[in-house]
Amino acid sequence: MNTTKRTEISSLGEFGLIERITEGLTTQNKESIKGVGDDAAILQFSGDEETLVTTDLLMEGVHFDLTYFPLKHLGYKAVVANISDIYAMNGTPRQITVSIALSRKFCIEDIEELYAGIRLACQQYGVDIVGGDTTSSLTGLAISITAIGTAPKGTSVRRNGAKETDLICVTGNLGAAYMGLQLLEREKIATAGKDIQPDFQGKEYILERQLKPEARKEVLEKLREEGVTPTAMIDISDGLSSELMHICKQSGTGCRIYEERIPIDYQTAIMAEELNLNVVTCALNGGEDFELLFTVPIADHEKVAAMKEVRVIGHIVNESMGLALITRDGAEMELKAQGWTQNNC
Amino acid sequence: MNTTKRTEISSLGEFGLIERITEGLTTQNKESIKGVGDDAAILQFSGDEETLVTTDLLMEGVHFDLTYFPLKHLGYKAVVANISDIYAMNGTPRQITVSIALSRKFCIEDIEELYAGIRLACQQYGVDIVGGDTTSSLTGLAISITAIGTAPKGTSVRRNGAKETDLICVTGNLGAAYMGLQLLEREKIATAGKDIQPDFQGKEYILERQLKPEARKEVLEKLREEGVTPTAMIDISDGLSSELMHICKQSGTGCRIYEERIPIDYQTAIMAEELNLNVVTCALNGGEDFELLFTVPIADHEKVAAMKEVRVIGHIVNESMGLALITRDGAEMELKAQGWTQNNC
Repeated sequence: MNTTKRTEISSLGEFGLIERITEGLTTQNKESIKGVGDDAAILQFSGDEETLVTTDLLMEGVHFDLTYFPLKHLGYKAVVANISDIYAMNGTPRQITVSIALSRKFCIEDIEELYAGIRLACQQYGVDIVGGDTTSSLTGLAISITAIGTAPKGTSVRRNGAKETDLICVTGNLGAAYMGLQLLEREKIATAGKDIQPDFQGKEYILERQLKPEARKEVLEKLREEGVTPTAMIDISDGLSSELMHICKQSGTGCRIYEERIPIDYQTAIMAEELNLNVVTCALNGGEDFELLFTVPIADHEKVAAMKEVRVIGHIVNESMGLALITRDGAEMELKAQGWTQNNC
Repeated sequence: MNTTKRTEISSLGEFGLIERITEGLTTQNKESIKGVGDDAAILQFSGDEETLVTTDLLMEGVHFDLTYFPLKHLGYKAVVANISDIYAMNGTPRQITVSIALSRKFCIEDIEELYAGIRLACQQYGVDIVGGDTTSSLTGLAISITAIGTAPKGTSVRRNGAKETDLICVTGNLGAAYMGLQLLEREKIATAGKDIQPDFQGKEYILERQLKPEARKEVLEKLREEGVTPTAMIDISDGLSSELMHICKQSGTGCRIYEERIPIDYQTAIMAEELNLNVVTCALNGGEDFELLFTVPIADHEKVAAMKEVRVIGHIVNESMGLALITRDGAEMELKAQGWTQNNC
C-alpha cells in the first residue's frame, strides 16, 4: 500500500471516488454503447437486442446486519436490488451470476437459506442463475451479484434524457425501507441480551419494505401499454435527492419537486414521528426503496396522472435554476446528494 | 443464522458446496443455453453471436496477501483470471464490470494503483470496463469482477465434449505460479521485522507467473489459424488434476496423462527442490497458472505437436478406466481433485 502520499477516501466521498477511478475511461469495443455512469451498461452485440449489465457487491456489517436480517430475505433482496437496475433501464432481467464469500461461522444450512431467497426472487422475476463463484472469507459474508438483461434495440432508457418541462414521476412511496431499517435497529438495541421479542405491531409494511423489497416490474409494463416512454429513468436505491441529482447532472438540467407531492405511507410517517425524525428528509434521503424515478414529456401528463402507482412530484427546469424542493409554505430548498460516506437521514 | 442443525461447510468441500447450492437448478429463459458448471455461462440472445459470462470474487487474506502483492499487480491479475475463463470457452473477452469493497486502511492512491493494473490488463486484452460498484468494507479488500465475452454462434467450447482417443493438451508450463507464491511466502517470513530485502535472484520467472500472469489468447488464435477446434477446454486455475477431473466428469470419460510429458520450467523445478517439494505434485495441484487444458481429436496430432506453446500430455480413455497419471517408472497413480478446502500441494 502507498506510504508516500495518502489521501483519505472520505475526502472524496463515494461519488468523488467513482469519478476519480473512472476518469478518462474510454471504450475500445464498438459494441460497448454505454459504459459506467448509469444503472446498467448497454452492450449492442449483433442482432436486434441490447444487452444490459449491472452489478452490486454487498458486505456484511456495511450493507446488512445478520442479527436481524434473515438470510433468506437477504438473498431475495440482493437479487431484487440488482434486477431493479435492469428495470430502471427499461429492460427485462434475464440472468444473474451469484458470488459469495463465507467465513467459518456459516454452515451449509445458512447457505441453503440464502440461496432459497435468491432462487425465490429469480422465480418471481423470471430470471436464471447462470454462474457464480463460491469462496471463503476471513470475516463475514460478501455477496456479489451481476444481472444481465435485454431490451429491444434503442429502447433502453438512460439517466441523461430529461428535458425542460418534462414531468418528474415516482412509483409507490418513499422512505419506507429506511424507516423499516430504523425500526429494526431500535428493536435490536431494545432486545439485546434480554429475553423479550421485538415489537413490530402495526409496522409490518415498513418492515416488509426493508426485508422483502420488490422491483417495479409492473409499472414498466403499464407504461408500455399506455405508450409512455420515459425520457430518463433511475431506480431509487440511494434516496430521491441523490437520484434526482444524477438525472439532472447527466441531462444538463435543473428540477423543482414539491414537498406536498412526495408520496409517503402512513406507517413511514408514524415511525418518523416516534423517532423524532423529519419524514420528508427521510423520504428524500432514505435508501433502498427500489422505486422508479423517471421523467416523461408533459404531453403524457394525463396518462401518468391516471396511473395508481405513479405520482407526479415536479418538473424539469433549466440547468441555471438548480435543483430545489418547494416546501409546503412555498420556500425553495436546495437539494443535496448523499452517498455512503454520510448518514442517510 | 441457523441454530437448529449445523453442517460444517468443510464437510462438503468447495465442489460439494457448489453441487448442493446448484442442485436442481434449471433455466427458464430460452436464451440461457448453458448455466452453471463451465468456465462461463453461454447466452444466446438474438443474432449470430453467443454471449459468455463469468465472474470471480477475490477476498483479501484468502486470495491475496497485500504484504507482498502490489495493488497494481493485483488489479492486473484479477482481470486476467476472469478473461482467462472467457478464452477457455474459445471466446473473446469484450467487457468487464469491477466491484470493490474497501476498508479504511486504503487511501485514494491505493485504489488508483489497483485501477492502474485493472486498466493495463484491459488495454492489453482489448477489454472495456463498463460498470461496477464501489463500497466500504469492515475489514480488508474484496474485488468482484464479471467478464463478458462473445463467440460466433456454436463455436464456444465447453468442458463436456472430450471423446475417447482425444489427445489431452496443455499450454505453457505448470506449477510456476504456485512456486512463485511459495517463494513470496518464504521471503515474507524471512524478512519480517528485519531491515533486509527479499532475495528473488534467478527466480524472476516464477515470480512473474504469480504476480503478473497472462491469459493464453495467442494459443487460441494459433489453433484457429490451423483449423483445430478443441473438443473440450478449461483454464487451469485450481490445478491440472482438478481441471482434468472436471473435463472427464462432464464428458463422461477417463484419462491417462504421462508424468514425463508434463511441462515444467526449470525455475519451478529448482524452487521445488529448495523447498523439498515434489515438483510433479506441484505441477498437478498448483493453481493460478491460467494455462489452457484442452482436448483435440487424434487426427489433429501433427498440428498440435508442431505448436511451440502446446504440449500433448496424454489422452482420453473410457470412463471405466478412471483418471490416472502414468509415472516415469510406468506405475498408474489415480488423480485426485483438490478445492480450496485443502492445501494445494
